[in-house]
Amino acid sequence: MAIARRVAEQIAGSSWIRRMFEEAEELRRGGGQVFDFTLGNPRIDPPSRFTETLIEVARSELPGKHGYMPNAGLSDVRSAVAAYLSREQGVPLEGRHVIMTCGAAGAMNVVLKAVLNPGDEVLASAPYFVEYGTYAANHGGTLVAVPSRADFDLDVEAFGRAIAPGTAAVILNSPNNPTGRVYPESTIRALGDMLEIRSREVGRSILLISDEPYRKLVYDGAAVPSVMKAYRNSVVLTSYSKDLSIPGERIGLAAVHPEAEGCEELIAALSLCNRALGFVNAPVLMQRVVARLQGESVDIRIYQRNRDALYQGLAQRGYELSRPEGAFYLFPRAPGGDDLGFVGALRRERILAVPSSGFGIKGYFRLAYCVEPETIPQALPAFERAIAPYR
Amino acid sequence: MAIARRVAEQIAGSSWIRRMFEEAEELRRGGGQVFDFTLGNPRIDPPSRFTETLIEVARSELPGKHGYMPNAGLSDVRSAVAAYLSREQGVPLEGRHVIMTCGAAGAMNVVLKAVLNPGDEVLASAPYFVEYGTYAANHGGTLVAVPSRADFDLDVEAFGRAIAPGTAAVILNSPNNPTGRVYPESTIRALGDMLEIRSREVGRSILLISDEPYRKLVYDGAAVPSVMKAYRNSVVLTSYSKDLSIPGERIGLAAVHPEAEGCEELIAALSLCNRALGFVNAPVLMQRVVARLQGESVDIRIYQRNRDALYQGLAQRGYELSRPEGAFYLFPRAPGGDDLGFVGALRRERILAVPSSGFGIKGYFRLAYCVEPETIPQALPAFERAIAPYR
Repeated sequence: MAIARRVAEQIAGSSWIRRMFEEAEELRRGGGQVFDFTLGNPRIDPPSRFTETLIEVARSELPGKHGYMPNAGLSDVRSAVAAYLSREQGVPLEGRHVIMTCGAAGAMNVVLKAVLNPGDEVLASAPYFVEYGTYAANHGGTLVAVPSRADFDLDVEAFGRAIAPGTAAVILNSPNNPTGRVYPESTIRALGDMLEIRSREVGRSILLISDEPYRKLVYDGAAVPSVMKAYRNSVVLTSYSKDLSIPGERIGLAAVHPEAEGCEELIAALSLCNRALGFVNAPVLMQRVVARLQGESVDIRIYQRNRDALYQGLAQRGYELSRPEGAFYLFPRAPGGDDLGFVGALRRERILAVPSSGFGIKGYFRLAYCVEPETIPQALPAFERAIAPYR
Repeated sequence: MAIARRVAEQIAGSSWIRRMFEEAEELRRGGGQVFDFTLGNPRIDPPSRFTETLIEVARSELPGKHGYMPNAGLSDVRSAVAAYLSREQGVPLEGRHVIMTCGAAGAMNVVLKAVLNPGDEVLASAPYFVEYGTYAANHGGTLVAVPSRADFDLDVEAFGRAIAPGTAAVILNSPNNPTGRVYPESTIRALGDMLEIRSREVGRSILLISDEPYRKLVYDGAAVPSVMKAYRNSVVLTSYSKDLSIPGERIGLAAVHPEAEGCEELIAALSLCNRALGFVNAPVLMQRVVARLQGESVDIRIYQRNRDALYQGLAQRGYELSRPEGAFYLFPRAPGGDDLGFVGALRRERILAVPSSGFGIKGYFRLAYCVEPETIPQALPAFERAIAPYR
């Protein structure tokens, strides 16, 4: 059978990524050490409380323990999450404002399905997590990239100019993938004010979707400001993938601002879309586990040490990069300006990285430093050799 | 914010279902016994080997145990599943033919996304699992219902006539929800032959999607014939929800016939769509658990006894119904012919059932008998009172 044209195009369009993976696989098969900084797949084990809770829940005897529940999730789980989010966001949420989902990616698809009409636009700051474009297209929408400022902060004015009557939503991702940037409170406030004004001007309430899977991974005492305090027509998405190092378990959520316009209708739509897209409900065992681990996270000091070691090592060797406050990514400039070319040069030194073309801008590369700490000093001489010809 | 028009329509269109649930909730809140035959949510506990394996896997120390893996699943899990399916289907599958998914509903969305172009049609035999229509629409397709024969067997000739150049796929669901019918081997063979011929005639290889979550729930020694032996352009979907009584865990799979046309491209498309739709991968802990439980199922004698007790009890009381060989549903005619009306009459007797209008035909109602065995004798007098005015 022929596959769908759009899927065939996506496969063809991502052939350079596949080729990159194949070259990486070839490197690995060749033996010897490979320094893999490509994947946001935490190498750090989940916190011990996670494993203890998992075993406890696995052993517990509850009737219908692995059965269906309402599509939005178990009500006691939703209440536990709401209590935690209320403190985090500084806005009082109840269980009914929370929809448990299959990860943040599942949550994003559920939200976009719930609000997009054919031809609608979704705005995101570039560089951005590349799947946003796919997710918008899944539900008949189009992603519009709004270039960030030079320091990777949001360009609120550029967002304001990009908003049109066809704009359904704005995606915010802080701490940011791929830059690691945490947007300051002044930016979030300005964004909220601008969205109020532009919503009135274009005659449509624009939804702010805050994708926050890295919220707990912040360093140097940085804090991620509340989006809900800045703008009421907002939905917060997150997952436990990074907090607890469990990305393969697919557990996350969407939370609707209790004062959002049409809040109840939006909640009903999210619940329906969770079922309609085939997720049905978030995996129930993990719902019970994460409910008991609200606020828990892996020891982020490991990531902070990795960030410091890799940042300093690269800066000393002449790489141009900023020192991000969150997530587990560095986003240096590609020496010479050609990100695909420089990622090839890194690969020849047995370093795997992702070119920024994969994030909607050119001239940078992304390093995921959620690696074992010893990898970094071992890789630095190879980074040194890769940049040498450009100095 | 306004929700998407299509979602608003779906919410409005399903308002009668919501009203039904609300009335049921009201019944429950009122106290006293309620006989709930609405949901395919098994009341039987998972087999003890499931819980043992779950605890074992939860305790096991594997590096990156809860991390990401390729979107299609863990390779050893895919191999274990392929070995089992090879015996079940009588066709030699390898691990690469299997994509682990978030349940059968997730698998169906992944397959439809992978093959549907805008405007394509998907055929299914009515009565059918009502979400098929939603799933086809999610990916730009339209579901076309082909009425079954009077005995609920597939009407292969009617399918042949319904096939057009816009037909991308045919969905087969055996044992069937809602009828409990297991299609005989002669029907499956005739379907395969017809699809070969009609594919040639319309100049398009039609994909046969066999949705088999109830395959292990068959009675009286019935067997579910292999679809893969009958037609090579086929994909088998299943989940462990019914086999192991774990529908809330969202674990299932899609398996591609190894000799399907464009098999490798289809596998790549399924893998990509699993990611693109936001599933990313099937929950990893459950992947490991089910890999060790291939062929395992709950004690189906409980369901068989329930079926026998409910079938006999209803037949004796004058209900018109057939005695299905599989799944856990009975599908009697609604006395008087008005399914919505009769379901209302049942509710007044504190029995909850689903009218057949929810499955694309009129005049029947569905009873899910995956209930505690004592529920059935307790409910029979109420069934008696409900039918009395119609005799």
